[in-house]
Amino acid sequence: MTDLLEVDFARLRADVEALSAIGRCSDQGIYRTAFSEGDMAGRAWLRERIEAAGLDFHQDGAANLHGRLGWDGSSPSVMTGSHIDTVPGAGHLDGALGVLCGLEALRSLKEQGVALRRPLELVAFSDEEGRFGGMFGSQAMTGRLTPESIHAAADLAGVTLVEALAAQGLDAMAALDAQRDPASIHAFVELHIEQGPVLDHDHTSIGVVEAITGLQRWEVRLQGQANHAGTTPMPLRRDAMRGLAEFAVEVDRILEEHGGPRSVATIGRVELLPGAANVVPGEAHFALEMRDTDPKVLLELADAFRRTLFAIARRRELMFDFEVVSRIEPVACDPLVIETVAACATDLGLSQRRMPSGAAHDTQQLARIAPAGMVFVPSKEGRSHSAAEWTAWSDIEAGANVLLNTLYRLAS
Amino acid sequence: MTDLLEVDFARLRADVEALSAIGRCSDQGIYRTAFSEGDMAGRAWLRERIEAAGLDFHQDGAANLHGRLGWDGSSPSVMTGSHIDTVPGAGHLDGALGVLCGLEALRSLKEQGVALRRPLELVAFSDEEGRFGGMFGSQAMTGRLTPESIHAAADLAGVTLVEALAAQGLDAMAALDAQRDPASIHAFVELHIEQGPVLDHDHTSIGVVEAITGLQRWEVRLQGQANHAGTTPMPLRRDAMRGLAEFAVEVDRILEEHGGPRSVATIGRVELLPGAANVVPGEAHFALEMRDTDPKVLLELADAFRRTLFAIARRRELMFDFEVVSRIEPVACDPLVIETVAACATDLGLSQRRMPSGAAHDTQQLARIAPAGMVFVPSKEGRSHSAAEWTAWSDIEAGANVLLNTLYRLAS
Repeated sequence: MTDLLEVDFARLRADVEALSAIGRCSDQGIYRTAFSEGDMAGRAWLRERIEAAGLDFHQDGAANLHGRLGWDGSSPSVMTGSHIDTVPGAGHLDGALGVLCGLEALRSLKEQGVALRRPLELVAFSDEEGRFGGMFGSQAMTGRLTPESIHAAADLAGVTLVEALAAQGLDAMAALDAQRDPASIHAFVELHIEQGPVLDHDHTSIGVVEAITGLQRWEVRLQGQANHAGTTPMPLRRDAMRGLAEFAVEVDRILEEHGGPRSVATIGRVELLPGAANVVPGEAHFALEMRDTDPKVLLELADAFRRTLFAIARRRELMFDFEVVSRIEPVACDPLVIETVAACATDLGLSQRRMPSGAAHDTQQLARIAPAGMVFVPSKEGRSHSAAEWTAWSDIEAGANVLLNTLYRLAS
Repeated sequence: MTDLLEVDFARLRADVEALSAIGRCSDQGIYRTAFSEGDMAGRAWLRERIEAAGLDFHQDGAANLHGRLGWDGSSPSVMTGSHIDTVPGAGHLDGALGVLCGLEALRSLKEQGVALRRPLELVAFSDEEGRFGGMFGSQAMTGRLTPESIHAAADLAGVTLVEALAAQGLDAMAALDAQRDPASIHAFVELHIEQGPVLDHDHTSIGVVEAITGLQRWEVRLQGQANHAGTTPMPLRRDAMRGLAEFAVEVDRILEEHGGPRSVATIGRVELLPGAANVVPGEAHFALEMRDTDPKVLLELADAFRRTLFAIARRRELMFDFEVVSRIEPVACDPLVIETVAACATDLGLSQRRMPSGAAHDTQQLARIAPAGMVFVPSKEGRSHSAAEWTAWSDIEAGANVLLNTLYRLAS
């Protein structure tokens, strides 16, 4: 067993509290959407903290902020990071916790004068949350951006990425220069709050992420015949809502028969047309989303959902069609990172469970070019993307120590 | 068997075609909302036709138009009527057909010099369709209006009934004088298109209406917990949509177990909150409407729906509440009218079926003060409240003859 290191928890907590005050709008939560005033203030604060820690500060072409330890420009680094941009009205932990635990880890390693074989690199990725589409910084690093995609990116108000960066004196096209040679990264580890209820529900300290789920998102339309709800006897109806209801109650069965233990599916949006209390609905439009960590399971689920929809539509004399509006491939984490995280949690005497990440993270991008993995800490009641986001300080300390020791072992 | 009379069908058809041109907006349908320019033009045309037929024209305090035959101001009349106002973008038959068949019936009786014991009265009721709430004219006649209700009535654009009538030189408060002494009406019969698919589907000419369905309309809220659709395992969800789906598939069973053969129920509007594809819906708001002709059946249905909702909410750990936003009591038609209509159809050699009216009509109001009933003619595919509304001319002729002979026998 290697030496076990410990973070300076009081210092980490002070950082978390300090960053959480930047962009905060009283009880409405935090507003640090990418390249907004709040985000820029957060970036300035982070740069100051990186420099105060004696790390080498670097900003790449995608405006990703780096803090480097032992960097020599040639050896592959052990990289950790997350993001400090937020959704509007965010909590204080999503993204920020990973960056600050990474900062504390590098600071502790430097301070404790630990001998390392590999350089360490902290990254705060730009626009993970999606003001301009999401994962801008990590996609830039993995070479997924094109001049066209950069030019096309705009926020909901119509402000383009090019304009938003120019307003900060930055050149959006420089993001193409942020691409990293895969050989320059030995491993990548991201600490993040779970954003789900599993660890909290099980009273488990550490989630060892094995894979990041992929998804298919469908827009489904069932079409029957709109009719007077008073004058149309039940047997003469072609009620799109009845078709939708019949399908919705089959979702659990389909997951059980065709899914894995991690499969989930959701109908999160429904619109009935014409949508009046006294009219039999002629159309039902709804969003169906299915997620799994296994690409084969995802395909089998999609096939089963399609067959069930088809059968119900035929039986109910409805027409149906659907469009796959989003498709994200699952990503497996690297065994080296998984086992290192797990071993550190064990050595620290922390309860742990292996689990998927149901949400998307920068790790999904980094896994394309480097061995990558994640450390989860519990989210109180699974709450996230809201001011109600919370993780106990003891869980944060435990997660920070797992990250510190994982980086230490990977860099040794 | 009494003599069988016949209408002048060519004349009736010409009237239907003439009125259908008034307020028509090319292929968008007919616009004769109450007291609009189109409605006023229709009223002027109808008055001219009533006077041309040699009937006594009368306009009461609620702007209901009357055409009277043999009126002596003391004997109870046999009344027929419907309305010529329309919904926006209407077809040419809803309401208008009943008024014009009534006009043709009185005209034929007068022309054929038939001896009658009782006066006959045709009425075109004001604002049946609801620009200012609906059934204004028939409610005035049955004493259901109050000074408060008249003052409060306004259309969707905020124009008050008082203003709209004043613009036509009419005093809305005079509607209170339109109330009729029940003793002044011997019977009331309304011919109307079915506005449902039953007669068309069964190739039946005449619907003998036995009752007008009542309804309860509920606004239901199921509340669970909104959660991330990727990170929340199925067993940890409190998904309001799953509760709604489970309830919606029980609707047929509840109708079969607790309803009568005429019971219908509809979920015509659904809203999920927050309503995003990637969020487990925390709330489902929906409209549930149940209809039947029997008040006891309606109560039993309401009770069964409530129990099922309660059970599902408990099982799924959802909170639920509902509000009864509308409640209309069923109305039975009068046996004398029902049997007279049925006998006339039989004597005319027409196929017939006894049925409820699933839609609301002025008859619902008149039944409060007089023996009342209805004659239905088929609606092509049940279409109504649209320019696609259609009834074959042969069915219209059959219906007109049933109405003529029914009025004749009731007045004899």
